[in-house]
Amino acid sequence: MSDQHGHTLGRDLHGPRTHTCGELRRAHVGQEVVLKGWVDTRRDLGGVIFIDLRDRYGLTQIVFSPQDNETAYRLADRLRSEYVISVRGVVRERSPETVNPKLATGEVEVRAHDLIILNTSEPLPFPVSAHEEKRTTTSEELRLKYRYLDLRRPELQRNLLLRHQVYLITRRYFDAHQFVEVETPVLTKSTPEGARDFLVPSRLHPGKFYALPQSPQLYKQILMVAGLDRYFQIVKCFRDEDLRADRQPEFTQIDVEMTFPTEEQIFELIEGLIQAIWRETLGVELPRPFPRMSYDEALRRFGSDKPDTRFGLELQEIGEVFRGSGFRVFESVLEQGGEIVALVVPGMGDQGRGYMDRLDKDVVRKQIGAGGLVYFKLPSDGGPIYSSVKEHVLPSAYVQRAVAKLGARAGDLVLLLAGPRPQVYLQAGALRLHMARELNLVPPAGQAPWHFLWVTDFPLLEWDEEAGRYFAMHHPFTSPHPDDLDLLETEPGRVRARAYDLVLNGNEIGGGSIRIHRQDIQRRMFRVLGIDEEEAERRFGFLLTAFRYGAPPHGGIALGLDRIVMLLAGAGSLRDVIAFPKTQRGQELMSNAPDEVSPEQLEELHIRVVLPETEASGS
Amino acid sequence: MSDQHGHTLGRDLHGPRTHTCGELRRAHVGQEVVLKGWVDTRRDLGGVIFIDLRDRYGLTQIVFSPQDNETAYRLADRLRSEYVISVRGVVRERSPETVNPKLATGEVEVRAHDLIILNTSEPLPFPVSAHEEKRTTTSEELRLKYRYLDLRRPELQRNLLLRHQVYLITRRYFDAHQFVEVETPVLTKSTPEGARDFLVPSRLHPGKFYALPQSPQLYKQILMVAGLDRYFQIVKCFRDEDLRADRQPEFTQIDVEMTFPTEEQIFELIEGLIQAIWRETLGVELPRPFPRMSYDEALRRFGSDKPDTRFGLELQEIGEVFRGSGFRVFESVLEQGGEIVALVVPGMGDQGRGYMDRLDKDVVRKQIGAGGLVYFKLPSDGGPIYSSVKEHVLPSAYVQRAVAKLGARAGDLVLLLAGPRPQVYLQAGALRLHMARELNLVPPAGQAPWHFLWVTDFPLLEWDEEAGRYFAMHHPFTSPHPDDLDLLETEPGRVRARAYDLVLNGNEIGGGSIRIHRQDIQRRMFRVLGIDEEEAERRFGFLLTAFRYGAPPHGGIALGLDRIVMLLAGAGSLRDVIAFPKTQRGQELMSNAPDEVSPEQLEELHIRVVLPETEASGS
Repeated sequence: MSDQHGHTLGRDLHGPRTHTCGELRRAHVGQEVVLKGWVDTRRDLGGVIFIDLRDRYGLTQIVFSPQDNETAYRLADRLRSEYVISVRGVVRERSPETVNPKLATGEVEVRAHDLIILNTSEPLPFPVSAHEEKRTTTSEELRLKYRYLDLRRPELQRNLLLRHQVYLITRRYFDAHQFVEVETPVLTKSTPEGARDFLVPSRLHPGKFYALPQSPQLYKQILMVAGLDRYFQIVKCFRDEDLRADRQPEFTQIDVEMTFPTEEQIFELIEGLIQAIWRETLGVELPRPFPRMSYDEALRRFGSDKPDTRFGLELQEIGEVFRGSGFRVFESVLEQGGEIVALVVPGMGDQGRGYMDRLDKDVVRKQIGAGGLVYFKLPSDGGPIYSSVKEHVLPSAYVQRAVAKLGARAGDLVLLLAGPRPQVYLQAGALRLHMARELNLVPPAGQAPWHFLWVTDFPLLEWDEEAGRYFAMHHPFTSPHPDDLDLLETEPGRVRARAYDLVLNGNEIGGGSIRIHRQDIQRRMFRVLGIDEEEAERRFGFLLTAFRYGAPPHGGIALGLDRIVMLLAGAGSLRDVIAFPKTQRGQELMSNAPDEVSPEQLEELHIRVVLPETEASGS
Repeated sequence: MSDQHGHTLGRDLHGPRTHTCGELRRAHVGQEVVLKGWVDTRRDLGGVIFIDLRDRYGLTQIVFSPQDNETAYRLADRLRSEYVISVRGVVRERSPETVNPKLATGEVEVRAHDLIILNTSEPLPFPVSAHEEKRTTTSEELRLKYRYLDLRRPELQRNLLLRHQVYLITRRYFDAHQFVEVETPVLTKSTPEGARDFLVPSRLHPGKFYALPQSPQLYKQILMVAGLDRYFQIVKCFRDEDLRADRQPEFTQIDVEMTFPTEEQIFELIEGLIQAIWRETLGVELPRPFPRMSYDEALRRFGSDKPDTRFGLELQEIGEVFRGSGFRVFESVLEQGGEIVALVVPGMGDQGRGYMDRLDKDVVRKQIGAGGLVYFKLPSDGGPIYSSVKEHVLPSAYVQRAVAKLGARAGDLVLLLAGPRPQVYLQAGALRLHMARELNLVPPAGQAPWHFLWVTDFPLLEWDEEAGRYFAMHHPFTSPHPDDLDLLETEPGRVRARAYDLVLNGNEIGGGSIRIHRQDIQRRMFRVLGIDEEEAERRFGFLLTAFRYGAPPHGGIALGLDRIVMLLAGAGSLRDVIAFPKTQRGQELMSNAPDEVSPEQLEELHIRVVLPETEASGS
């Protein structure tokens, strides 16, 4: 094969292309042009060869005819899908019946009089032609292995171009608002709180390790102490977690911090950014300000700290109605301070026993992890209410009263969950999302409506039953609400944080807070988290020291860039908006990372592999 | 202390600042304003307190007088350096004799009628006042430990702002040229060739490791195979090397790749970028095109592949003159195919014995590593030439002839080194730089002249005596010059590469090449480098596979962003243009990275530390 393009190695005698494959129009007719690209499709018709030549910018039809050039025509006969070629030819108008209105270049074609084959291609493991708009049925594993082929598809190229636009818009926006982009280190110190760190052994310091940053949190706070005033960065972050479908071990965030901020200033700043992104990529003008909702309200109405407000199906607390009903399940929950949460689902009052059993078993118990479902069916023909709890256990008077209070009507299905707060709300929220999907209430991805929402007034701390201690709901550097400061040691669970999340259509796309900037408060916070003085000094000593030298009030936010682009693009997965994503097992299938390394490399790093027992012994 | 600003935690009752500390002018006189910042300096004069309030944007004089507000005045008496405050007051014109023409805000002052102390500060370990323009004498170690204080100095803030501008200009430029910014992974596969990889143990895949990328070389080539056409990225890269003064283990490069390129297109593209950076940051209009020089010429004339062409002192090959002289040192070098390289240094013909001995011993032998120096002194009074080699060893006729051939005149000093090529040239080049510094010929950093230069036609391979094999001078993916392809197996040392470096004032600021895009050539290249089929497949199999499916010709470049900003800023070190740099021992002194981690973390990662013998045994 090599003889046929041997002369072309670095010898592309045509020189640079004159146009891209998306550029030629009727105005170019008569010009001699040089195009370069991939053979997308080939058709042979009446002794003439038609090639759709493809590059990032589009498709152009190339015509090889023996009349135009016998040699080029004969060489063109060797062309196969995905060959890379350079073509010299003349732009001609297509005859009216052959104009392709779907193609930007569809009014013209290039009649080739010279052809160079720059590289050949073996038959592909799956098709990538621009004419195959829809995702192929190829397994994702195969597509990730041959990522360079999958990336040739217009869909993924559009996603990467969209991502590029988001970078640019973001940077232009922050620059215009006097924010400085500063690069923070990737080789940092391990201070895990929450997620696991990726570690990097140090060759020069035996037994010591760098950690990849879970976020540049402390560096950006330090930059505020340094007087940088306004910082942003589009930055890779790393979390060594067991990966869920929508997580990546390395991900990109838009990281922001400012000095002397109010929450309002941060909301305005970020709303302006989001508005600019939607305007400049989709041409959509988002209304502002975005709605705000307290964590408490979000939990009560939607059973989530990231409510999807594009549809109703709101939750209702209905516990009082059942007091004294004698129904043990409900009564005991109420006695223990728990709550009963109801969801009225329209149009489902006639569901049969099978459906309801599957809903209880597969969804409520298995997926959502609740103890079980109580439900009332209100048949659409106005017939009597059916309760899943027998009359002698839960008298119908209570059922009637609940249905009335909830405003349920004929044809509705009433779903009830009972349990302690906040769990019962979160479970009801998950059930709400399930029912919304069942009812086809969830609008398709990548389209209006765009429901942005600020969730505010988060609790500062969450109690972890297993660990027997409080954890920071956001992170240990979040400022308590000043009104609640006195409760920090006495009733930590009641302290609100100056924290906020940005939610889009039920997805958390960002979160931030006003930070602690005083050494004494930071020390109190560490104590509440069970971090003693010594540990605080060892892990965060530099921050505590920095706070001694004129640390200004500061706060900020981090936005999930991958997720924002995914939602903008209407993509089904983060993997569709990342050039070289990792699988759920943290592997990059194209290059095969992670992989084994040489014993010499490990020796230099002063480490040894210790395989887990089961794998090492094999028994 | 906490009572005095207890009310201010999150309770900055002044609300957002109305202006920055660099903003107020005569036009604002009479307005009520709120400023926030750091107490830069305080003076007490005639019962009035003057504060220079500082933020990133400038300094503003604040006046606290008991006449204006007694409470604020009394609170102001507590102010010390670096306290963080919020001030409400009215802008007043300064009296003519107190106007400060050096300050942008020097015509006005703010007469305070309300003060909030937002945070206090202990006395600093070293001064950071904006009035101390010059670097303090504080040790760099202390400054790195308290990096947040050092970063308050205007000099470092200017550097970070300059860096920010370079990011923006670069991204705008590439976007305008249809380049797409794509993020490549940080957790990649280890394929060391040249430098050592930083490794990251995998928790999910026991015994396997990720590597941090030394550059996104293979990913950017894969993006070209994927049809992205034009890629760029400002990206962190990692090399675990023993660090020289001007290296960092993590550094930032402007990474560029394009499809169907000619060298000329890449030169033009990058010259345009550099021109835009210099124009928009310094207001300097650089002439184009930049000069080009072959590696061979750079070596012969300047003894370097990154020649500083801002001054002369060019090298001259003078071997022929000494043939038959009987001077054994020279004759044996010439017999072995070596060369004799001369440097004529003006104004140094009268140097005494002591100076010449130190030059020979400390510079030529010790620093440069050459075997020794031969020199001829031509006294400025026209007296007889003094040769460091005695007449009976090297007859004066040969000396005379050499001096004549070199065009040396009274007052000149002729320095000669002998040895094999290219070493003798590199040594003479180092000596040239030393003499240029001695003669004060090297212009100061951060100023014109800006001598940019493309060095081209590098050898493809370098022979490594110790390893007994060839190494790629750039990297194994660099295309051989098509004219030399037939020599690849027979005379590998003579093959030129399609590689190029960009040099500025003697600093390499970038390097790139046209790549190999054909599988067969890439396999031949691996063979020449002693990488057998199996190893090639294991390490680079995905690239070889990618080349089977329509890989286009492609090439690119990577520019050292840290170094470019350092040269632009006239900074003395890379550490002055990186927010949180590492020391030469790879440490980040502020947070103390790298550091020890918990045994649990290591266990989860399936590794164990093996301390070096000497440290483990202590005996």
